[in-house]
Amino acid sequence: MKSFASDNYAGVMPEIMEAIQAANYNHARSYGADDITAETVKLFRKVFEAEVDVFFVFNGTGANVLSISSATQSFNAVLCADTSHIYCDESSAPETFTGCRFFPLKANDHGKLDIETIKTRLIRKGDVHYAQATILSITQSTEYGTVYTQQEIQEIAALCKDHGLYLHVDGSRFFNAAAALGCSLADITSKAGVDILSLGGTKAGMMFGEAVVVFNKRLAKEIAFKHKQVMQLASKTRFISAQFGRMLKDDLWKKTAGHANKMAGLLNAELSLLTKVKITKPTQANAVFAEIPREWYEPLQEHYPFYVWNEHTHEVRLMCAWDTKEEEIRNFIAAMKKLQDSE
Amino acid sequence: MKSFASDNYAGVMPEIMEAIQAANYNHARSYGADDITAETVKLFRKVFEAEVDVFFVFNGTGANVLSISSATQSFNAVLCADTSHIYCDESSAPETFTGCRFFPLKANDHGKLDIETIKTRLIRKGDVHYAQATILSITQSTEYGTVYTQQEIQEIAALCKDHGLYLHVDGSRFFNAAAALGCSLADITSKAGVDILSLGGTKAGMMFGEAVVVFNKRLAKEIAFKHKQVMQLASKTRFISAQFGRMLKDDLWKKTAGHANKMAGLLNAELSLLTKVKITKPTQANAVFAEIPREWYEPLQEHYPFYVWNEHTHEVRLMCAWDTKEEEIRNFIAAMKKLQDSE
Amino acid sequence: MKSFASDNYAGVMPEIMEAIQAANYNHARSYGADDITAETVKLFRKVFEAEVDVFFVFNGTGANVLSISSATQSFNAVLCADTSHIYCDESSAPETFTGCRFFPLKANDHGKLDIETIKTRLIRKGDVHYAQATILSITQSTEYGTVYTQQEIQEIAALCKDHGLYLHVDGSRFFNAAAALGCSLADITSKAGVDILSLGGTKAGMMFGEAVVVFNKRLAKEIAFKHKQVMQLASKTRFISAQFGRMLKDDLWKKTAGHANKMAGLLNAELSLLTKVKITKPTQANAVFAEIPREWYEPLQEHYPFYVWNEHTHEVRLMCAWDTKEEEIRNFIAAMKKLQDSE
Amino acid sequence: MKSFASDNYAGVMPEIMEAIQAANYNHARSYGADDITAETVKLFRKVFEAEVDVFFVFNGTGANVLSISSATQSFNAVLCADTSHIYCDESSAPETFTGCRFFPLKANDHGKLDIETIKTRLIRKGDVHYAQATILSITQSTEYGTVYTQQEIQEIAALCKDHGLYLHVDGSRFFNAAAALGCSLADITSKAGVDILSLGGTKAGMMFGEAVVVFNKRLAKEIAFKHKQVMQLASKTRFISAQFGRMLKDDLWKKTAGHANKMAGLLNAELSLLTKVKITKPTQANAVFAEIPREWYEPLQEHYPFYVWNEHTHEVRLMCAWDTKEEEIRNFIAAMKKLQDSE
Repeated sequence: MKSFASDNYAGVMPEIMEAIQAANYNHARSYGADDITAETVKLFRKVFEAEVDVFFVFNGTGANVLSISSATQSFNAVLCADTSHIYCDESSAPETFTGCRFFPLKANDHGKLDIETIKTRLIRKGDVHYAQATILSITQSTEYGTVYTQQEIQEIAALCKDHGLYLHVDGSRFFNAAAALGCSLADITSKAGVDILSLGGTKAGMMFGEAVVVFNKRLAKEIAFKHKQVMQLASKTRFISAQFGRMLKDDLWKKTAGHANKMAGLLNAELSLLTKVKITKPTQANAVFAEIPREWYEPLQEHYPFYVWNEHTHEVRLMCAWDTKEEEIRNFIAAMKKLQDSE
Repeated sequence: MKSFASDNYAGVMPEIMEAIQAANYNHARSYGADDITAETVKLFRKVFEAEVDVFFVFNGTGANVLSISSATQSFNAVLCADTSHIYCDESSAPETFTGCRFFPLKANDHGKLDIETIKTRLIRKGDVHYAQATILSITQSTEYGTVYTQQEIQEIAALCKDHGLYLHVDGSRFFNAAAALGCSLADITSKAGVDILSLGGTKAGMMFGEAVVVFNKRLAKEIAFKHKQVMQLASKTRFISAQFGRMLKDDLWKKTAGHANKMAGLLNAELSLLTKVKITKPTQANAVFAEIPREWYEPLQEHYPFYVWNEHTHEVRLMCAWDTKEEEIRNFIAAMKKLQDSE
Repeated sequence: MKSFASDNYAGVMPEIMEAIQAANYNHARSYGADDITAETVKLFRKVFEAEVDVFFVFNGTGANVLSISSATQSFNAVLCADTSHIYCDESSAPETFTGCRFFPLKANDHGKLDIETIKTRLIRKGDVHYAQATILSITQSTEYGTVYTQQEIQEIAALCKDHGLYLHVDGSRFFNAAAALGCSLADITSKAGVDILSLGGTKAGMMFGEAVVVFNKRLAKEIAFKHKQVMQLASKTRFISAQFGRMLKDDLWKKTAGHANKMAGLLNAELSLLTKVKITKPTQANAVFAEIPREWYEPLQEHYPFYVWNEHTHEVRLMCAWDTKEEEIRNFIAAMKKLQDSE
Repeated sequence: MKSFASDNYAGVMPEIMEAIQAANYNHARSYGADDITAETVKLFRKVFEAEVDVFFVFNGTGANVLSISSATQSFNAVLCADTSHIYCDESSAPETFTGCRFFPLKANDHGKLDIETIKTRLIRKGDVHYAQATILSITQSTEYGTVYTQQEIQEIAALCKDHGLYLHVDGSRFFNAAAALGCSLADITSKAGVDILSLGGTKAGMMFGEAVVVFNKRLAKEIAFKHKQVMQLASKTRFISAQFGRMLKDDLWKKTAGHANKMAGLLNAELSLLTKVKITKPTQANAVFAEIPREWYEPLQEHYPFYVWNEHTHEVRLMCAWDTKEEEIRNFIAAMKKLQDSE
């Protein structure tokens, strides 16, 4: 099966698999005290152009909860988009672990948070009756497959600083965003005022593993304790860090995330030519959103699974991954054309 | 000082104070095992016309958190109005204690939840990625001082039953609602499908104390353990139950809550005559909402404190209590008239 | 009924009841912003001889959980006696609210913690796999009715400081301890190195209410937010602070707690004369522990309820309260004598 | 480096690495809905001889917290050995996530829990002031490297049933225990009355991954929601289940865990011959505990890292893994002999 359902349906990139095997040598100290992890952290500092602290974790929910927990006490509130993964797709894990309130902010049509919208919740500071906002979480690339520019992040970061908020980026598809912007990883993090980043590896073609990258030293103080406590400290950490080491080496991510983005661009272009299909969001990274006829669901999904995003409008989400092939897109489009013509 | 800021600025009703003193006799078993408490529970069963379980607690936040916790596990979600006290004025106590997500629903212009609005969150049942809604909380009377009718509650309760949700009523001003509707306490609880009620005593004229009234036996199963755990089990419970006993005896609540409502009605009527004042919500219980000139705040608040509800529209909230006097309202109106005329 | 079961079976002292009634005057700002509360805090600062912050709460569990939460993050551990109320009688409220681990330390025969015992848990500092101790809780007077001397507290406080621990005192019977020692409240708190105190009012003869007294300014920083969040912020706070104001005024506590202690001393002396009764703990405050014949339970408890402390050894706990009368003790002893003689 | 520090210093077994690579084929449904996972679950049912539910997780702490959370509400208590990993080495993760109290029980000299010791905490049932025990956790093989027999487990399970407790087994080295006993995995789980098992993969030679195996259908009801919530649901689950599939296939575990045990036996035998070394615990699985001269630490650890278990008695823990070689043991012993002779 090949699928447009999610980039987490894809397997492991061959370069990553090689790195894993290379790491499987002899004994190594556990819980991240090994040499591969130390080397990888150095590489993070180089590519993020900052003295970051890095905590390798198992999955995206773990990365987000750890990030949030590093900045919060139980009486705090977290601001996030109403469309965000942390609000819609991580059960109540964030609340259960941090005790905080999560205030949803209405995302704009592109799935991003506007400055004016954020300001609506910057209220009642110091009021003990009101959960006190201390961190804002944005998603890069967003749940709609769009990308915040460096300037947009800088503006949000400036607002956060003005109001004593930390800025968190949920970057489960961060490599896709950077590849789309054609910028460095530092440009949209350390150089844009981000305090803490959940950097996704799994959807980018790793077997498992994400990294919490801490730019703000104040957040680094006690996060190591929470890393363990949030059940995300791997005993054989080398097998996560080795994957990230390879991903960052020679900018492998740029090539592979760039490929996924390119495939999404192709899919977008081809879909645009279909009269019965309507593109609903700008395609900026590796996702395409489109409305298709309801009766196409079953015949298409038999061979090309995808997610229905909106049952009412028949909007579907089509994800491209590091291993999506041009041929697969052409076949998928051909299947649609056939359905279109047969009506 | 007499104030329109909140009904919790008022003191203790003389009848209640007498009941407290009468309870202060000799030794009594602690933690609710005393005779006064037993008698009071019997009275609850009579007036609510149901075999309710009753848990006396200290304050409104405690009552709400205990009620919610009786119905939830940590992966659950709670549905409530975006204007509700539990969402806006109880810090993140509900999340910290229950671990649950709280999904805000847009209240209508009258501060109530519409059936259609509730339905928008009755989604993704069984999806482990999504916090699972298990209880809906409505406020009676609402934060806008409006009142759900018996029929409205019945319709909401029916929807809840259909979707496997419990129905909680935050009744910190429940007596005002019942007095406004001219109905019995049973009419809008046991006879309307309510599962659990936070019954407010403090704002109604007690010194302290609220009661969690459990109508649904499934919720009664383990709530006693949570009662202690939520730090709301009073060692000298008799001094809460004695107050409630008096409040329910001879329908004292009807007289005193009715009086507060009547005073709000008078205030509404008088304000309506002022050309520079605009009533913004229907006055149904003991609250009046109105827009007044911004420059009136300070001169008025010097003698009659009140809450500014909306900084932008200059909407203020004026609460009447069991001890609000007609004369105080007339003086307050006179002060406004003077300000109006002096301009 | 008069009882030796617990000092929380007793009612409210007449002086306290008068203070409550005096506070019931007009409207007052809610949530502790009233004048009575402000005055009472001043009085606290005077009697504790320190610039303390004071947070009035409803009950002892609330006081303890608030105190602990002010000093902890979720990855921390709390050290306490295995006999302590916080470990044995507050359900898992402390864990649920703080997320912390509670490590029990073996109390000595007098129910106190020895320095050497405390040291056994001062281990693995900085080890992320091990819950990090950050606060030690002792009880004054202890669950065995014994009293830490000023010097003992100073030694424990010094150990805490050396190891970066905060020192908490659970003082649900703190007035009894101070009265027993014949010292000021400051002597065994601000002058002994205590960081935070749960000061009990209910068992001392109040209707309800305890006070969290913060000596260490670092703990005062965010505790106001947790005060609300832990569901312990009373809207009509004046009715708690007025009680404490009276208790501290003219050292009322010294007279009444001293009386309870004296009655316990009498009870101890009389029991010592009974051949079938064995005193098991030193009587230092208002508790007497003694082994009595098993067959005495029922005939005695019919008129004088008490707690069985140890089912196996037939050890019972006998508490005296502010209202225990010499005559009641003599009657109780007489009943025992009759049982003894009839065998 | 080769080490006796921990079996989690070892890498991935070649058979497991092959299985991982074989699983890296095409796209697969995420979050455990893939075919490999379905097949592996079938295999679990076969080898455990029961209709178990299986939840694949990332690490041991995750497995334990998920297991415990499936059986508890926040007012519950968990009973475990004072030496257990869940009590000593998982920070306060169990409390933070479940809200429960953890009561430590004194392990006997062999690191196991005696029936009589367990009974000491089976008290105060139904008392709302006391955290209510609902689950007992034992470790198999124990933290001392000893093994509960089938009969011992059956007796503990019977006691649990009698008192309404669930029985959890922390089996991070469960394969070693089964190999040591020469029994099937079913013999000491489904056939012994175990309700839920944390089955360890990582220390057994996997790259990452543990499995929560649910025998009691009552615990299976809502655990899927907690699986996600506890941040342990892998998007690419196939890469965990494929490892377990291989481990169970043809009883691979028996061979490899048996080898580790055998190496520990050899190490024990050789150490017994050293006059300056004293074996302190029976060697039943893959751990050896021994007291060695303090001055040997540094010279030995330079080449053969190990854990110091007890600083005072100079007891060290020596773990053997799937890849420990006889030659390495002989070299290690030779190094010790040289140290012994040089004194």
